[in-house]
Amino acid sequence: MSKLTNIINPVPSDIDVSQSVEPLTIPELAKLIGIKPNEYEVHGDFRGKIKLDAYENRKNQPNGKYVIVTGINPTPLGEGKTTTSVGLSQSIGAHLNKKVFTCLRCPSRGPTFGIKGGAAGGGYSQVIPMETFNLDLPDIDAVSIANNLLAAAIDTRMFHESTQKDGALFRRLCPVTKEGKKRFSKSMLKRLKKLGIDKTKPEELTEEEITKFVRLNIDPETISWRRVVDVNDRFLRGITVGEGKSERGRTRKTAFDIAVASETMAILALSTGLQDLRERMGKIVIGNDKKGLPVTSEDLGVAGAMTVLMKEALKPNLMQTLERTPVLVHAGPFANIAHGNSSIIADQIALKLVGEDGYVVTEAGFGADCGLEKFFNIKCRTSGLSPNCVVIVATVRALKVHGGLPLKECKNKNLDALAKGLPNLTQHIENIKKFGVPCVVAINQFHTDDEEEINLIIEEAKKAGAFDAVPSNHFAKGGLGAIALAEAVDRACQEESKFKLLYEDNISLKDKIITIAKEIYRADGVDFLNETEQQLEMFEKNGFGKLPICIAKTQYSFSHDAKLLGAPRGFRIPVSEVRASVGAGFIFPLLGKMMTMPGLPTRPAYYDVDVDENGKTVGLF
Amino acid sequence: MSKLTNIINPVPSDIDVSQSVEPLTIPELAKLIGIKPNEYEVHGDFRGKIKLDAYENRKNQPNGKYVIVTGINPTPLGEGKTTTSVGLSQSIGAHLNKKVFTCLRCPSRGPTFGIKGGAAGGGYSQVIPMETFNLDLPDIDAVSIANNLLAAAIDTRMFHESTQKDGALFRRLCPVTKEGKKRFSKSMLKRLKKLGIDKTKPEELTEEEITKFVRLNIDPETISWRRVVDVNDRFLRGITVGEGKSERGRTRKTAFDIAVASETMAILALSTGLQDLRERMGKIVIGNDKKGLPVTSEDLGVAGAMTVLMKEALKPNLMQTLERTPVLVHAGPFANIAHGNSSIIADQIALKLVGEDGYVVTEAGFGADCGLEKFFNIKCRTSGLSPNCVVIVATVRALKVHGGLPLKECKNKNLDALAKGLPNLTQHIENIKKFGVPCVVAINQFHTDDEEEINLIIEEAKKAGAFDAVPSNHFAKGGLGAIALAEAVDRACQEESKFKLLYEDNISLKDKIITIAKEIYRADGVDFLNETEQQLEMFEKNGFGKLPICIAKTQYSFSHDAKLLGAPRGFRIPVSEVRASVGAGFIFPLLGKMMTMPGLPTRPAYYDVDVDENGKTVGLF
Repeated sequence: MSKLTNIINPVPSDIDVSQSVEPLTIPELAKLIGIKPNEYEVHGDFRGKIKLDAYENRKNQPNGKYVIVTGINPTPLGEGKTTTSVGLSQSIGAHLNKKVFTCLRCPSRGPTFGIKGGAAGGGYSQVIPMETFNLDLPDIDAVSIANNLLAAAIDTRMFHESTQKDGALFRRLCPVTKEGKKRFSKSMLKRLKKLGIDKTKPEELTEEEITKFVRLNIDPETISWRRVVDVNDRFLRGITVGEGKSERGRTRKTAFDIAVASETMAILALSTGLQDLRERMGKIVIGNDKKGLPVTSEDLGVAGAMTVLMKEALKPNLMQTLERTPVLVHAGPFANIAHGNSSIIADQIALKLVGEDGYVVTEAGFGADCGLEKFFNIKCRTSGLSPNCVVIVATVRALKVHGGLPLKECKNKNLDALAKGLPNLTQHIENIKKFGVPCVVAINQFHTDDEEEINLIIEEAKKAGAFDAVPSNHFAKGGLGAIALAEAVDRACQEESKFKLLYEDNISLKDKIITIAKEIYRADGVDFLNETEQQLEMFEKNGFGKLPICIAKTQYSFSHDAKLLGAPRGFRIPVSEVRASVGAGFIFPLLGKMMTMPGLPTRPAYYDVDVDENGKTVGLF
Repeated sequence: MSKLTNIINPVPSDIDVSQSVEPLTIPELAKLIGIKPNEYEVHGDFRGKIKLDAYENRKNQPNGKYVIVTGINPTPLGEGKTTTSVGLSQSIGAHLNKKVFTCLRCPSRGPTFGIKGGAAGGGYSQVIPMETFNLDLPDIDAVSIANNLLAAAIDTRMFHESTQKDGALFRRLCPVTKEGKKRFSKSMLKRLKKLGIDKTKPEELTEEEITKFVRLNIDPETISWRRVVDVNDRFLRGITVGEGKSERGRTRKTAFDIAVASETMAILALSTGLQDLRERMGKIVIGNDKKGLPVTSEDLGVAGAMTVLMKEALKPNLMQTLERTPVLVHAGPFANIAHGNSSIIADQIALKLVGEDGYVVTEAGFGADCGLEKFFNIKCRTSGLSPNCVVIVATVRALKVHGGLPLKECKNKNLDALAKGLPNLTQHIENIKKFGVPCVVAINQFHTDDEEEINLIIEEAKKAGAFDAVPSNHFAKGGLGAIALAEAVDRACQEESKFKLLYEDNISLKDKIITIAKEIYRADGVDFLNETEQQLEMFEKNGFGKLPICIAKTQYSFSHDAKLLGAPRGFRIPVSEVRASVGAGFIFPLLGKMMTMPGLPTRPAYYDVDVDENGKTVGLF
């Protein structure tokens, strides 16, 4: 860890700041964080991967403090959650001289080349090299291939079942091997067990059993598994496949999602190890058969291959901040359709590596009603880990937007609008208290902020029960700008954590949804539309009733309606659809239509991205 | 380099053999081949990447000997070209104790999980770890993303042009920046230049110029750019995109290809450096505008971003054989629709690293009429490199198939059938002589081969002008089994190479096609169907007339008809379509329909792939 020395004002572009610091090599960084050469891999000059042994070897050692960075409901202005996560870490590591890890999500190249730009933080609080972070992390590609192999397996299997008789299917599924014998693969034996057929040799199956075994009878109308690509490609939002001559008219309507919206990505984020990943891969429900029973990737014989494709991706990426504190970048599920948090595996490893007196700072996607609620109820439920402190990021400007001020006017001082917007922050604070975790408000500063405005936020935040509320200037100053925040977090972490989940596994899926709606969103109730109640009952009948809930809704409001800013009251939540991600391990009710494939604007960010005459990457932001 | 010690008979499965040898670490391997720490990167335990500096730093040093492994026309039996390339290298390195590099293509995961299995060689002649080679090379993913970003750019641009007026398009393409100014991106300035508009500030454009600038007016019927995926997904052979509501009925029929069939992959293989890659990326023609003029990726402003996405992929992957000789794995274009050879960059680097007395063994896809002809006329034309020796792989069994014997009978001794099939081999030998390069026949041995059969091949090969012909047993014995072959190659490389191309840049495209058809395939002539003559003239008018030809045809026959085995005579070649890969730098005439998206069989190879209870990958072959 080493403090920044040449801070320039005004702050240069993100890529210029990023390229102004020479990163440590991975072996140097590894030495600093205390892992042995056989516990990590080098991947290029400034990226490593940590092997899962690093956790296994320290399983019995105590964990460090677990700090989650979340935010108020986002506005189009951007509140700087990642920048705050990184700045806070730089401060803890390089200024308070404590051990620290930052755990972040892998960015998608879709938004990087679309509107948003990069996701490595900003200004003097960044993960470096930012071009490596934004473009060269391979895990999303592994997710895409594994996901798309399953998609190909589904359509091809339906094709083969429709063109072959039982005997031919069986002969081809269990061919005579080189050794002259027929045999079942491991996944076939699992399928036989599921079918209640207690046999292990192909020769022993009766004709009836053969039919049961070879026919998945997938109902094409029920297939929820989609192909994915890590590009903002709006023309793939609705497609018809199977229009080639060789498919003989077996067309089907489907769509591509962006890779980070996939269940495969959520599985990567929620797996606790390789064997757990293998199991989750097999549990994926791709749709139903014609009798309405779930068909899994295990039934298709492809779950093992998917696991092997994801094996490398299971190791978190090791990078560093501008002040050379270590960062684990790992998994990147969407925060609406999925749970929006980086991986359990990375947090597990980091908590051991920082030790009892150290800190792991991680980030939850979107606002605290979305990413943080899921961090607690899904991620912590799965991992068993207990958070010590929540940092909630707010900005003066964004709170004025929540108070009803038009975007253009929010640079001007306006205590009234701020006071009107503050309930968005205070309701999040009250919610966080329900989980028993102390909460520090980070006011991410802009030069247009007024002191009276900042003081009003501090006052109201404390009134609502925040442990502390402090302005922070890490964008312009790096860790130096976040010292007050780091000290507040440090103090909060000395408090006893009384973490508890919002609901038990054993209550009904319906009650889980109602609990979140009332306790977190403050809705008056939930309307279950379109036979969603029956669907939930069906999930419970299929054995998925103990799973937690991952509500897919807009990030802009506590409610389902993006226009209801602040802390709305007097609304009911309409559940229009419910789906199951059984591999990832959650049920997700949809409150309206979710966008799972972003588009490109007329002038996408890629227009300026290029290599210069020296081969340096330019134009990323 | 170190000889294999524990060779088992019969040979265990490929993955078992692969996992029986502990590979050198990349730093150990790097030391062995004489590259400095700043000339390579480590990527995981047993894979490296060589930086392009390794070539730049040795630019003025002499090259080693350049050896190309090719084959007779393939049969369903598999002739073992990669296995021979690897076995020959193991022999040169570990048994003749000379410096050697093997340069191979990156495998596609499509066939790995489909029918074919892995592509790392076989038996005791393999690149290791074979699971890393087959599953974890990241370059195809970079190719896919770059390719698909361009695809998204095309459809989205057409959408924006159809929904916005000129003024709005211009305002959005050149928005006011933070600094309060409008400006053109680098790619926009290139487009203005192409349009003959000699201006550099947005404010200076007239209304007419604005219209010219903002409207690409792509004719959807002419779009040849397809999306790609590295999976055998037959249901993507014909699709309709744009069926989402948000695309408002702007549907279009298109398809996905497998990633290795893409022009992007061919560009990676034919680039000679980063700036050359950047230029090729900009030259890609995606279709025509409504006036029939070519529209490029540069026009879409996306060529710079595509280059940045491919920057890491431009560095060849460093791996090793079972006998620890170095291997560069880099790029993997299809051998029908593209030129089917690994990268120029890898060969350039390897030729410098082995030095004057060393050897670079590389492989050309499919038979010598396909991959080798393209190796000479496209790859060597582009690189300026001169080959020293060709190794042509044949098997007793496959030559009997060319002689008309059914597959099932080809294990039985049959001198007649062999004699009838031998012209396939001898015609390739005669062809190779036309390029002025000495040719060694490698008879890849099977235990069913008969001595008389082998002797007949040797005799006929020599009669046809082969420098030598030797049986080789590297599958079962590694480098030890290929010593005679290695010695023959060594002797052939002492000959003076009189390498010459088959045709000059300056003859017409039509004459180039006719030359290949007559000289290599021995066709009586070429029939240009469906206005392909006019299309070729149009290419010449558009400035593409100097490009070489990459004929897309079946690999199974010298002709366009897969059923014409041996050395057919009395046929004419029908050119049904001609296309241009301007970025890659070739024109490709199609002789019939090419399959650019393979399918999965009823029981794909993925059924057995899994992790075992220790986390080891199993079931790959």
